[in-house]
Amino acid sequence: MKLFFSDAQFAHRPTQYMVHGRIVDPFETPERPQALVRALTGIGLMLHEPVDKGLDRILSIHPDHYVNFLLSAYDEFITLPNHGPEVLTNVWSYHSADGDLSRRGPPRPTGIIGRMGWYLGDLSSVIMAGTWSAALASAQAAITGAETLLAGDPAAFALCRPPGHHAYRDRASGFCFLNNAAIAAETLRSLYSKVAIVDFDTHHGDGTQAIFYSRGDVLFGSTHTDPSAYYPHFYGYADETGIGAGEGANLNLPLAQGSGDEAFVDANARLAVAVQGFGADALVISAGWDAHEADPLSKLKVTTDAYRRIGEMWGKLGLPTLIVQEGGYSLSAIAEAAPAFTAAFREGAGL
Amino acid sequence: MKLFFSDAQFAHRPTQYMVHGRIVDPFETPERPQALVRALTGIGLMLHEPVDKGLDRILSIHPDHYVNFLLSAYDEFITLPNHGPEVLTNVWSYHSADGDLSRRGPPRPTGIIGRMGWYLGDLSSVIMAGTWSAALASAQAAITGAETLLAGDPAAFALCRPPGHHAYRDRASGFCFLNNAAIAAETLRSLYSKVAIVDFDTHHGDGTQAIFYSRGDVLFGSTHTDPSAYYPHFYGYADETGIGAGEGANLNLPLAQGSGDEAFVDANARLAVAVQGFGADALVISAGWDAHEADPLSKLKVTTDAYRRIGEMWGKLGLPTLIVQEGGYSLSAIAEAAPAFTAAFREGAGL
Repeated sequence: MKLFFSDAQFAHRPTQYMVHGRIVDPFETPERPQALVRALTGIGLMLHEPVDKGLDRILSIHPDHYVNFLLSAYDEFITLPNHGPEVLTNVWSYHSADGDLSRRGPPRPTGIIGRMGWYLGDLSSVIMAGTWSAALASAQAAITGAETLLAGDPAAFALCRPPGHHAYRDRASGFCFLNNAAIAAETLRSLYSKVAIVDFDTHHGDGTQAIFYSRGDVLFGSTHTDPSAYYPHFYGYADETGIGAGEGANLNLPLAQGSGDEAFVDANARLAVAVQGFGADALVISAGWDAHEADPLSKLKVTTDAYRRIGEMWGKLGLPTLIVQEGGYSLSAIAEAAPAFTAAFREGAGL
Repeated sequence: MKLFFSDAQFAHRPTQYMVHGRIVDPFETPERPQALVRALTGIGLMLHEPVDKGLDRILSIHPDHYVNFLLSAYDEFITLPNHGPEVLTNVWSYHSADGDLSRRGPPRPTGIIGRMGWYLGDLSSVIMAGTWSAALASAQAAITGAETLLAGDPAAFALCRPPGHHAYRDRASGFCFLNNAAIAAETLRSLYSKVAIVDFDTHHGDGTQAIFYSRGDVLFGSTHTDPSAYYPHFYGYADETGIGAGEGANLNLPLAQGSGDEAFVDANARLAVAVQGFGADALVISAGWDAHEADPLSKLKVTTDAYRRIGEMWGKLGLPTLIVQEGGYSLSAIAEAAPAFTAAFREGAGL
């Protein structure tokens, strides 16, 4: 099983993250993928450099005006008088939102402040000089991983960092800039007619949900901490089931704070039933390790053993599967949970 | 002519304001109303304590769930671990927006972070311990001023601070919490069938616009700096003309950066024509002094003489008029512009 990661993904190293009204050190650090590379090669995954596939696959999900913003935002930002060290927005727009957040157009404002407010969805999506090249390399890991499946590999692990599942078509949020899982799913759609994305990161994958909310060819299923008092706050509720052609192709299974292994494994089992009922012929797993009881952001009590159990379960589905890295912020927990999951997945799939 | 202001309005004294990715000292300080009281009593306005009229008039504009948030936000915020000194949001919601921002319901999130993101529209709307009592007192100045007109005074000056015109029905932004001008206009509607609000603050009054966007009984007309590269960025464009019953009752006259007295006076003259064409029988003036060339936020080159000219012009309309204080951040410029405008208004109105 191949592991895709490039050193270019280290280039994103912001120094700020605002939470509880205070600017603190970021959780989403370059040490995370370092720990994951060690742990996953340690169980025998083969590290491969992603191939640069250009922008076509990315532009199938993200509009060019958003990609151009990510490319140029930092250079424009540092022309502002008395600017801070990195792009942090202080305003935001409300153009959108009726369930289908993919239908916004280009921004009305032409100035950098207004465009920051249009494209940045919260204060964790900090842009510095290396952000674009790292996000681009992260997406290339997802694309190369998906294309490996198209070429016949039964499974692969895309070590995407920065992560992707909070990125909307035209909005960065939750440490995410490009939606790696969505780009991978769309890549898989070139061969497979029905693709499922399952997401067991402890935060709801609101960006992925929004991207596919009106589509019937891609199922999005997620289990995560109840968003009523947890990030991303505004989406991830059980009554969000899709619209139009996508009605019924969106499944949210929020877990109450304090839930443990049984609830987590059970929710994954329900997602697996939905994936089979949907008739998916390929699978993208948005894998976050931040439900782990040792994670600094976790409100759940999930142990490494639960990741092993769901790994085996997802492997047993026998679908062509791309595992896409999302969150997980305890270096020791991710170094346990990711290999436990992946080894069990391999075993379940008979690989 | 009476001037309404209460010392309770000083209680809002935030220490932070985030702009250009950096937290800086706020511009919207208690020294502003101090300077205005001196300047306006200096030309003979009589300082009166606003009467506490309770919440009824406020609740005619702002839903109770938003008012309750303003009341309790600080106390809830300081229960968060490692919280900053004042309520600053790090997330925000996109629930709303199809032109009529007044149609959002209560928030889905129940936690304080999600509700901060629901109700706070940017990083200038900082809430500290005294914010609610100051915002409430500011609104009472507007209500008392409007009721003075209902009782027969031809004109009054409500020295509202914090200001109001960026406050939406359920969203604080741009230093604003309660929309004083909107509350005053609604108060005047209890007697007058058609009320006009004109706004010559250099920032578009996006909150006021949104509140009345679908109403035909209240005209909103504004001249301000072109929002394409200036706060509030997302609204204030010339093609925003109202919807439904409000179609045609919204008029935006954005001015290019660098515009001076002639453009500013001309735009006010066009607003006056619109007010007369609308058939208004009472007038609320959202008066900001921040188009002044000496203002630290200004991108226009308006001089004190232009405020004198438009003051005379608005006075000559002869309508029952409440002047409601909005922005203006140079203590010396506001101490010139506000009395120049008000004295000329009084003269134009023959008072």
